[in-house]
Amino acid sequence: MKLIDALNWRYATKRMNGEKVPQEKIDRILEAISLSASSMGLQPYTILAIENEEVKRKLQPAAFNQPQIVESSHLLVFAAWDDVTEKHVNDYINNIATTRNVSDESLNGFKASLMNIVEGRTQEQKYEWAARQAYITFGTAITAAAMEEVDATPMEGFQPEAVDRILGLKEKGLRSVTILAIGYRDSKNDFLATAKKVRREREKLILKVA
Amino acid sequence: MKLIDALNWRYATKRMNGEKVPQEKIDRILEAISLSASSMGLQPYTILAIENEEVKRKLQPAAFNQPQIVESSHLLVFAAWDDVTEKHVNDYINNIATTRNVSDESLNGFKASLMNIVEGRTQEQKYEWAARQAYITFGTAITAAAMEEVDATPMEGFQPEAVDRILGLKEKGLRSVTILAIGYRDSKNDFLATAKKVRREREKLILKVA
Repeated sequence: MKLIDALNWRYATKRMNGEKVPQEKIDRILEAISLSASSMGLQPYTILAIENEEVKRKLQPAAFNQPQIVESSHLLVFAAWDDVTEKHVNDYINNIATTRNVSDESLNGFKASLMNIVEGRTQEQKYEWAARQAYITFGTAITAAAMEEVDATPMEGFQPEAVDRILGLKEKGLRSVTILAIGYRDSKNDFLATAKKVRREREKLILKVA
Repeated sequence: MKLIDALNWRYATKRMNGEKVPQEKIDRILEAISLSASSMGLQPYTILAIENEEVKRKLQPAAFNQPQIVESSHLLVFAAWDDVTEKHVNDYINNIATTRNVSDESLNGFKASLMNIVEGRTQEQKYEWAARQAYITFGTAITAAAMEEVDATPMEGFQPEAVDRILGLKEKGLRSVTILAIGYRDSKNDFLATAKKVRREREKLILKVA
């Protein structure tokens, strides 16, 4: 499917039918997540890929009992780093040096830019920045699911502290920021499945400065 | 190009060659932006599409003189609403009612969810929420450009107040949050054009809860 067709096809699915998404489609969606852009390429987030039905059932009350939590094939929980530290930067610099076979020293300028973020912002500001990066990847994941003709529900409606507790995210230095339920639409029970897409007037959404 | 191939092909282009991107490609990237997901479909942002060379030159010092600002074909400035108001909600509800040919009253439950955001958060919290939505669309736009084999530079490195002043965004109730420069790579002068992509180890980036 072409990108524009895929984006027209997708919608925030309200009911899913429980059908499993084939592993090769899941793998391509996860590969798109891995390849997604993020500021300076740091990827300051972790994605929890949840297939376990019991874990989903535990999460459901924390997401206002939305049915897609248990009707989905997989839940992807996007969790941002709760801080960005010098260790994160050093690990990343080592990764670049190894991957590209260059010296750590040749990356000193780039490292300084990363350290500006580590040293110039409060922990909360760093978390907010990390959360925005997770949202870029969230946008990539939503698009990737649509390209696979896999339905998805982007969900902000949940209690992050409860989700963090259930998944043990605090101990991992993570905070949940958004969830993508993926699976297949239950067209019979989802009134939105046939609803016309509503978008802001193009002339107001995009202002041309010619 | 397939999505995964497109994401492997793209990179944060550091130097562009000034070549213009054909209008039909620009139109498809803008269409993807318009179709992008956002929380409750509100699209609480506006995108400034800048082709004017003089405006680009004015913006360049506000973006630490990065060359892509003037070497790009188009600059897309993603600006979030600086507040989310009852008027925004009413306009959106009217748009849904008209597009789907349903009564405003039938949307009362949905309107209440939107009004929870308007009434339950500070202006700064609403702006932050709007900025995150802009980042979903930013992720969609980065992907859409790659699918068109158009290069792009996602840029957070600029002074938002200066950009807002140059583009008159404050008067429009907007604040710039991120920029996407689009155009074509100058492979000869861009050391990153041939650099291997660096990504976090898959096992650390994505944790499987089976």
